[in-house]
Amino acid sequence: MRCEVVAVGTELLLGQIVDTNSSWIGEQLALIGIDSLYQVKVGDNFGRMEATIRQALERSEAVICCGGLGPTQDDITRDVIAKIMGVEMVRNDAIADHIRDIFEGRGRPMPENNLRQADVPAGAATIEQMPGTAPGLVCPVGDKVIYAVPGVPHEMREMMEGTVLDDLRRRAGETSVIRSRVIRTWGYGESAIAETLADQVDNLDETGHATIAFQASGIEGIKVRVTAKAVDVATAEAIITAEVDLIRERLGDHIFGYDDETMESVVLGMLRSQNLTFAAGESLTGGFLSMRLTALDPKLEIFKGAVISPAGDGDGEDGAIAAARAARDAIGADIGIAVIGPQDPDAHPPGTVFAAVAMADGDHAKTVSLPGVLSRMRGYAVITLLDLLRKRLA
Amino acid sequence: MRCEVVAVGTELLLGQIVDTNSSWIGEQLALIGIDSLYQVKVGDNFGRMEATIRQALERSEAVICCGGLGPTQDDITRDVIAKIMGVEMVRNDAIADHIRDIFEGRGRPMPENNLRQADVPAGAATIEQMPGTAPGLVCPVGDKVIYAVPGVPHEMREMMEGTVLDDLRRRAGETSVIRSRVIRTWGYGESAIAETLADQVDNLDETGHATIAFQASGIEGIKVRVTAKAVDVATAEAIITAEVDLIRERLGDHIFGYDDETMESVVLGMLRSQNLTFAAGESLTGGFLSMRLTALDPKLEIFKGAVISPAGDGDGEDGAIAAARAARDAIGADIGIAVIGPQDPDAHPPGTVFAAVAMADGDHAKTVSLPGVLSRMRGYAVITLLDLLRKRLA
Repeated sequence: MRCEVVAVGTELLLGQIVDTNSSWIGEQLALIGIDSLYQVKVGDNFGRMEATIRQALERSEAVICCGGLGPTQDDITRDVIAKIMGVEMVRNDAIADHIRDIFEGRGRPMPENNLRQADVPAGAATIEQMPGTAPGLVCPVGDKVIYAVPGVPHEMREMMEGTVLDDLRRRAGETSVIRSRVIRTWGYGESAIAETLADQVDNLDETGHATIAFQASGIEGIKVRVTAKAVDVATAEAIITAEVDLIRERLGDHIFGYDDETMESVVLGMLRSQNLTFAAGESLTGGFLSMRLTALDPKLEIFKGAVISPAGDGDGEDGAIAAARAARDAIGADIGIAVIGPQDPDAHPPGTVFAAVAMADGDHAKTVSLPGVLSRMRGYAVITLLDLLRKRLA
Repeated sequence: MRCEVVAVGTELLLGQIVDTNSSWIGEQLALIGIDSLYQVKVGDNFGRMEATIRQALERSEAVICCGGLGPTQDDITRDVIAKIMGVEMVRNDAIADHIRDIFEGRGRPMPENNLRQADVPAGAATIEQMPGTAPGLVCPVGDKVIYAVPGVPHEMREMMEGTVLDDLRRRAGETSVIRSRVIRTWGYGESAIAETLADQVDNLDETGHATIAFQASGIEGIKVRVTAKAVDVATAEAIITAEVDLIRERLGDHIFGYDDETMESVVLGMLRSQNLTFAAGESLTGGFLSMRLTALDPKLEIFKGAVISPAGDGDGEDGAIAAARAARDAIGADIGIAVIGPQDPDAHPPGTVFAAVAMADGDHAKTVSLPGVLSRMRGYAVITLLDLLRKRLA
């Protein structure tokens, strides 16, 4: 089964918006075993859109059109698909009512042209999920299919996850299920992980039960994805669990979490369960750590806050401990953490920083060398510091 | 003149990397008046790459292939182009020597397959800029041309700016020059700006001297881009200056900056020139403001820092002023700024926040209503707060 992605919008070609939708869709398609061999960006032009979608439909069994479903005259994806289907546009009253309701709910008058969004090609099914005013469409063309989803990322994702991916698998006649799990690691390089797991990967290649893939993801660490294909969910989950157990034995506490967990969600969870709060000194990291933590703990319940101020006189690991204690005391928390740079950078290898945790059972510090560019170094410093805290809490 | 962009790499289709190169190239092409009507992503597959590039070459006068110039067996862009040109590959000794030098400079042995990068299609010219080990290529095909540039963004950009864009304009027989200026605004909606400038835009449409385009950019505000095409740079600049003057009269202090300036770079610049420092209370914004400011002022010279801590008892504009003063005094700065939410959110419209500036000539506060989702609201709160400070400093 092949599925192409056509991203619609002159603003994409002009570079006013980066097309992240195609990448995300490509990733989802790969995870369910559907090939996406071409992805095309095309402007809001009838002839070029028609040619692009027709070609995609020749090369593949399915096409996902992303964008061009808005209410303005520029938004012609619906009309182009109707021409390819060889049908007229028809007003969908349920969609029209829904759009009216949305405007009413916002207490705003509905511009009449918004009803254009309720005109769909005859024979197209509307996608159940409809988080905005643009309906998604499933448009049969012979035994092939065109999906139309909005360009607004969260609307597109909701429709993909709620309808399109399942519909594609059904059309692919797929009776097997695919499940995968991502193991999140920190502190090991990609090649070190690959080496540690080499015989396990070889073994899987032979049995064909599952695959293990590595993905270096910057300050998100190295991701290890285990994917299994099996006759049913239970079997797939059992294969994954067995493989993950093996990986856990080998990578130990380099593993900080799974799937959507992040270093900060894991640390916040550990502190919550231990009924502890913490605060940070951010002279070096300048708010980067607070921003990540407050996204998850906006009311400052576990992460009580931070002090960002010019670095004090402290230096080395002792200086970091002093900064951690100072933040803890200034904000009022159980634990303080901080990462500082050396007073004299020339006296240390480039990128040297000192991370410290000040807590009731004692203080802990660590000297590490991080990538040199400031913006990247900050990110690495934040995760290194949180990882130090994680290991102390474990 | 038309130029398509072909981004090469299976990792792009799989969503492991987002293709930002095509967007950037599209933007550069638009700025020099060259149409890019299609942009295609294709995997590292000989047949599909050949078909994609051939089709692009049929539809356009020029094609930019981005990626697939590395040293591994996967990197076949050179070979595909040679086939399309109908020529053999030849070893370019100068490139080979250059690659050897690079490895020698790094003190590392050169893997023999790196010399694959020195094999280029016969008749292709190499691009002078070569920041990495991958040479860029200018490959004539009849009276059309294929450019090959690496997928590494900074290498691609150096070659585009140093060679490809000029070569394209020369081929387009372009003797005119294009210049543009971006006016950065805050506090006005896109439609309000469009209305305010409507007759100016109409007037320009008639004279054809220049164009004005609007771009809503979230917390970066609304961008107004003025573009002029003229016989020489001086004329183009003069047209732009005249138009910008007219826009400035109308938009007044909604304009906070130009081109690459940001709200924070403008505010930091004003404070620097007035020899003032400031600090922020970030209970609500959770480090978002600090992160943006410390990216530009990492040593905390003008932005002295911030306090992130659970909100105090203050409420309303008075509460925001108290928070601004508290941050100023805690960190030690000339000016304090803060934005807080209401103690009782139900007593105010959704998204209501109070922004305040505490400075020597008095305190200033403002009540605003911002978009509801926390992550977006924070961004808007930060810019709104900086804009309040900007207006007080003006």
